[in-house]
Amino acid sequence: MESQSTTTSSGYEMPAEKITKEQIHQLAGEAIAARDSIMKFWLERCEDKQHGGFLTNFDASGKDTGTSEKYLNTQCRFIWTFSSLLRRGGDKEYERLARLGVDFIIENFWDEHYGGFYWKTNRDGSELDNGKIVYGESFAIYALSEYYLATKDPRGLEYAVKTFDALQKYCADTRYGGYREYFNQDWTPETPGFGGGDRKTLDSHMHLMESFTVLYEASQQEIHRRKLKELIDLIIDIMVDHTRGSGLNQFNLAWESVPALSLKRTWNAERFGERPAEPTQTTSYGHNTELVWLLSRALEIGGFDKEPYKGIMKQLMDHAIQNGIDWQYGGVYRDGLRETGKPIVLEKEFWQNAEILTGMLDAYKTFGNEEYLQAFVNVWRFCQKYMVIENLGEWRTLCDQKGNILDGNIGNPWKVSYHTGRSAMEVADRLRELANK
Amino acid sequence: MESQSTTTSSGYEMPAEKITKEQIHQLAGEAIAARDSIMKFWLERCEDKQHGGFLTNFDASGKDTGTSEKYLNTQCRFIWTFSSLLRRGGDKEYERLARLGVDFIIENFWDEHYGGFYWKTNRDGSELDNGKIVYGESFAIYALSEYYLATKDPRGLEYAVKTFDALQKYCADTRYGGYREYFNQDWTPETPGFGGGDRKTLDSHMHLMESFTVLYEASQQEIHRRKLKELIDLIIDIMVDHTRGSGLNQFNLAWESVPALSLKRTWNAERFGERPAEPTQTTSYGHNTELVWLLSRALEIGGFDKEPYKGIMKQLMDHAIQNGIDWQYGGVYRDGLRETGKPIVLEKEFWQNAEILTGMLDAYKTFGNEEYLQAFVNVWRFCQKYMVIENLGEWRTLCDQKGNILDGNIGNPWKVSYHTGRSAMEVADRLRELANK
Repeated sequence: MESQSTTTSSGYEMPAEKITKEQIHQLAGEAIAARDSIMKFWLERCEDKQHGGFLTNFDASGKDTGTSEKYLNTQCRFIWTFSSLLRRGGDKEYERLARLGVDFIIENFWDEHYGGFYWKTNRDGSELDNGKIVYGESFAIYALSEYYLATKDPRGLEYAVKTFDALQKYCADTRYGGYREYFNQDWTPETPGFGGGDRKTLDSHMHLMESFTVLYEASQQEIHRRKLKELIDLIIDIMVDHTRGSGLNQFNLAWESVPALSLKRTWNAERFGERPAEPTQTTSYGHNTELVWLLSRALEIGGFDKEPYKGIMKQLMDHAIQNGIDWQYGGVYRDGLRETGKPIVLEKEFWQNAEILTGMLDAYKTFGNEEYLQAFVNVWRFCQKYMVIENLGEWRTLCDQKGNILDGNIGNPWKVSYHTGRSAMEVADRLRELANK
Repeated sequence: MESQSTTTSSGYEMPAEKITKEQIHQLAGEAIAARDSIMKFWLERCEDKQHGGFLTNFDASGKDTGTSEKYLNTQCRFIWTFSSLLRRGGDKEYERLARLGVDFIIENFWDEHYGGFYWKTNRDGSELDNGKIVYGESFAIYALSEYYLATKDPRGLEYAVKTFDALQKYCADTRYGGYREYFNQDWTPETPGFGGGDRKTLDSHMHLMESFTVLYEASQQEIHRRKLKELIDLIIDIMVDHTRGSGLNQFNLAWESVPALSLKRTWNAERFGERPAEPTQTTSYGHNTELVWLLSRALEIGGFDKEPYKGIMKQLMDHAIQNGIDWQYGGVYRDGLRETGKPIVLEKEFWQNAEILTGMLDAYKTFGNEEYLQAFVNVWRFCQKYMVIENLGEWRTLCDQKGNILDGNIGNPWKVSYHTGRSAMEVADRLRELANK
C-alpha cells in the first residue's frame, strides 16, 4: 500500500504512514468513551433545580460558579444536545432534561406580543435583554426541531415554525438577499456598527443553514427546503472566497466583504470588549471545516445534488489542512489571515478543534483522501491530551499553541455542551461506521 | 415669458406656446367631469346583484356581456376605486360597494388553509384557479389597505397584513432579493417559462411598491416601511436602465435581464396566447412614467428623501417625452425598443395613456419643466377625443396610432375602473391644485 508524505505551507510534513483499521477501532472506542463522559459531566450539573432551565457556568474543576444570566443560545444548545442523544437512543432522563429546557424558553424567552425569542434573561427567567438576535433565534429553531424529532412534542415544531416565520418577515433582506441579524424587541433593526444592525456574517448564515436543515427534516415542508437551498447557495456564492478556498467573515448589507468589527452580543465582544475594526481580514479554519460538514448534512437532508458543491468543499478542507492544522504540536489554530491563509492567532480554542474533527471525518467519507484522516487523528490526539480535563471528560476553553492552559473553565454563557458534545456524538458515530466497514 | 420648441427623436416638435392659467382652469373642469362620468358608468353597472362582487365585462355600448369568471385583480381594483373615492369625500354608496367587494373576496378568494388569495373564481365565487399570483396578491393589499383607510373596517388591515406576511414567507427570495411571482395554491413555485416560476418582472415589483405604500400609510408599521424602501431601491438599482433611462421588463431569478416571455395569467398571454420569446427587449413608456409617479408617492408616504431619486425619475420622464409621446397624432405609443428607445408598437392603449397623464402632472410638479405639461395636454386631448366613449364617459381598450378603434370594449377581466378611474381622480386633484396656485 502506497503512502505519501506531504509538506504543508507551515513547512511541516504530514505523517507518511496510513491509519490502520486497528487504529480506527481503537479510536472508535476512545470516542464513545469521550462522548459518554462529556454527557455524564452535564447530566450531573446542568439542571437548574431552583428556577428551571440550565446552568452554564462551571470552572476547571467542574464547580458551578453561579449562573446569573441565561442566554437563549446556551439554553437551546442544551435542549439540542439532550434531544440529539435521545434520537440516538438515549434514555428518559435526556427527554426530561430536553423538556425542562423547552418549558423554560417558551415560558420565559418567547415574546407573545412580537414573536421570536428574547436574547437573555436573568437566572430566574425574568427580563434582561429582550433583543432579537438571529444567531440566537437560529439556535431556537435548531433545538426545537431536534426536540420535535426526538419527542414528537408538537410544541417543538410549532415554535420552530413560528420563529422561522418571524425571520422571513422581519429579518430577510428583500433588497440584497440573506438575513439581517440584530434587532430590537419589536424587530426594528439594531443600531449600525457595534450594534450589528448593518452587518451580515457568515457565522449567523451558516447557523441558519444548520437550523433550517433540521427544521426541514422535522417538517418536510417545501418552504423550509426552499429557504435552506437559498441559504446554501447564498453562502457558497457570496460568503466563501473561491480563489483562496476560505470563508469570509463580515459583510455590509450589500454583501461587500468588510473587516470584521467586534459586535455586541457576540462572544468575542463579551470577552475582549469593543475594539476598532482591524486592518486585516481573517478566516477561521475551524469555522470553514464546520461549514463543510454542515453543508454536507444540509445537502443530504434536503435531497440536493452534492456534486456541484464538492469542488469548494474540498478547497475549504485543503486550505485547513495546508494552513490551519498544527502538524508540529497538534490541533488547529484559532485564526488565519484571509490574504495568505497563514495562521495569525496560534492558540487552540475548544470549538474550532471540536468542529474540525467532524469536518475531517466527513471529508474523508466524501473524498476518501488519507490526509483528512491524518488531520483528524492529529487534532483528536491534541484534544484528548490538552483540551479534555482529566476525570471530568469535558473540555477546557482555550490553550496556547503547545497546549498550555489559557482559560481552563468548562462552561460559560456561550460554551456548554454543543460543540464538544456534538463533535463527540458525530465522531463516535462516524468512527464506528468506519470501523465496521 | 420665454417659450421654446423642442425637436424630439421622432422628428416632431413640441408646441412652443406655454400652457396658460386659463387653459389649466378649463382642463381642471374637464377632468372633474371626466372623473364623475367614469364613476357614474361603473356605479350603474358593476354590482353583481346575483352573486355579490363585481361584473367586469362590458362592450362598447356599456352592455354587460356576461362575467363568467372573477379575477382577484379586477375585484380588488373595484374595491380600491370605491375606497379611494370614499377617502376623497365620496358618499355612502361607494362605501357599500367597497364593502360588497371585500365581503366577496374574503368569502370566496381567501385561502383559509394556506393563506393568501386565489387568482380566479367562477362568477358565483366557486373554485376555478386557486393559484397564488403576486400581481394579484399585491392588488389585494392595495385594495384592502385603501379600504381600511376609507372605512376603518378592521378586516381591511387584517387581511392586507396577512397577505403581506404570506408574501414575505413564501415569495421573498433570500438568495437574490425581490420576490418570486407565480405559485400554486400551496405556495410551491409554479413551473418555469410560461408558468412564470423562474421569472421576476418590473411589473409585479412596481405594483408591490404601490401596494406597500398604502399598506404603510394604513398601518404605520416599521416593517411595512422597511420593505417598501427595500423594494424602491431594488427597482431603481436593478430594474431600470440608467444609461438609457428606461425600465426593463423581465428577469431570471438572479436578476439577469431576459427577453420578455409571454407568461400565463397575464393579460398579454390571455389576449395573444403563448408566444416564443422575442429576440428584442422592449420598454413601456406608460409603465415607466407610472413607475415615476408611484415612486414619487411612495417616497412621500414613506417619508424618504426624494433627492437621490430625482435624476432617474427625470431620465424616465424625458425618455417618454423624447420617444413615447406621439407629437403628431397625440397619445403615447404602446411599446418601445429598449436598445434605441424608439417606438415599435404604435397603437394607443388605455392604461399607458391613463398612467402617463398622472405621470406628466407629477413630473411637472416635481421639476417644473413646461414640456411635462405640454405632454400632459397632448395625451389628454388624444384620450378625450379617441379613448373616451361619448355619452358613456369610460374609455375603450385600444386604438391604432391615429385613434381608429381596434378594441372598443370598455370592461374585461383585466380592465375595469383602476387605471382610468385613478388617472381621472389624480388628474382632477392635481389640475385643481395647479389652477388654485
